[in-house]
Amino acid sequence: MTVCLLGAGNVAVHLGKQLQAAGYKVLQVYSRTDASARSLAQTLACAWTDDLQSLSPADYYLCALKDEALPLVLQQIPSFPGVWLHTSGSLGLDVFESYTKNCGVLYPLQTFSKQRELNLSKVPFFIESRSPEVLSNIRSMAEKLTERVYELDSSKRSYLHLAAVFACNFSNHLYELAAEILQDQALSFDLLLPLIDETAGKVHEKSPKEAQTGPALRMDHNIIDKHLALLESQPARAELYRLLSESIFESNKKV
Amino acid sequence: MTVCLLGAGNVAVHLGKQLQAAGYKVLQVYSRTDASARSLAQTLACAWTDDLQSLSPADYYLCALKDEALPLVLQQIPSFPGVWLHTSGSLGLDVFESYTKNCGVLYPLQTFSKQRELNLSKVPFFIESRSPEVLSNIRSMAEKLTERVYELDSSKRSYLHLAAVFACNFSNHLYELAAEILQDQALSFDLLLPLIDETAGKVHEKSPKEAQTGPALRMDHNIIDKHLALLESQPARAELYRLLSESIFESNKKV
Repeated sequence: MTVCLLGAGNVAVHLGKQLQAAGYKVLQVYSRTDASARSLAQTLACAWTDDLQSLSPADYYLCALKDEALPLVLQQIPSFPGVWLHTSGSLGLDVFESYTKNCGVLYPLQTFSKQRELNLSKVPFFIESRSPEVLSNIRSMAEKLTERVYELDSSKRSYLHLAAVFACNFSNHLYELAAEILQDQALSFDLLLPLIDETAGKVHEKSPKEAQTGPALRMDHNIIDKHLALLESQPARAELYRLLSESIFESNKKV
Repeated sequence: MTVCLLGAGNVAVHLGKQLQAAGYKVLQVYSRTDASARSLAQTLACAWTDDLQSLSPADYYLCALKDEALPLVLQQIPSFPGVWLHTSGSLGLDVFESYTKNCGVLYPLQTFSKQRELNLSKVPFFIESRSPEVLSNIRSMAEKLTERVYELDSSKRSYLHLAAVFACNFSNHLYELAAEILQDQALSFDLLLPLIDETAGKVHEKSPKEAQTGPALRMDHNIIDKHLALLESQPARAELYRLLSESIFESNKKV
């Protein structure tokens, strides 16, 4: 089976490598910028292009592009051979449907960074297609990458993606705010790693609601007011602190 | 060396067990409620009391109480033999100082839950005392529990505790909000575990700033507006989403 990769970002890099390892022949990488297309193509030892008119014929066109880029790219594609897939959590299937019925979604629920190895075998992949044949092909592709393949429609996938933003993007940003607080005190971020690991580890055993600890749980104003005083010169962080504390307190009140 | 434990919550349970394993003799557990004092005392096979007038003579009085409870407890203690320690991130050393100079702090930077085993050996402990002799005793106690002992004053400790609230309490609450979003869609929280693990794992290698991914980084309004629409009926969560996204965007702009 042959694949053209559209996109050369974090998701394209990881999926490209692992599809190749799984026996798919990656023919070509397209990216709007020649340099990133070339860089990924060199990793995969395949062709590259920055010209959508020069896409190679292939069995699959796997679009790992930014959400806003995909519709613009599709408008410029001269014809739609093969099966068209995207990897987005928040784009519906309908983005393809005025162009081709041979289309679907292959969404890996993970955060990808270049230069960090990642084992996809436990990563949940969510697949969708209106064509039973295409769906079966996507399933077989996904099953070569992971043990966890789930069929999910576009609406539920968008909620899943929203949940992922809370659990990953926002959590990581809180790590960043914590890192900045430590940096201002000349303390190392490394000090927090056992705490971060335990916080992530706990929710394998308990629900996050059961795992919650800390001053906001019972609205301990002694501590909360001290913390707000420490954040006095940073109103945006203080406001986040207040809202998150209130949200914890409100959740804890619910039975 | 003998220890009386004041408090029978999560921190007292873990420290009590591990001090005992390290060779300290835990004589007695005090708690305001007889039942929790008894429960921990039974685990440790020691005496218990709910009466501050009946504290046993001991080398150390380790107070693992809520911040607001400690001053109230201290007011009721008839006399101050031994060394008095607390385990709080946000209370200063001064809470003890009108009562005794033989006092200090032993603060473990971790989130503790009953019924979850925890290896303290990699957990950073922060110690403080104005008495060099007491400090050296606390250091020797801490070094029996962990490989990572740091001396830190009350002011820096309060910032450390604030950072811990961001990195742990608030992150865990974001896991909870994600769990609720999934639950509303009849999706399992387990689906998020590889993502949560990778998010926590990444910051062992990269700074949280470098590790950040997701729609807020470049303020991708396509996705952000869709997510806010999904949260339309939940204004508190939508507001958190907005503030966290703006905070990520602002941090990313900084060089």
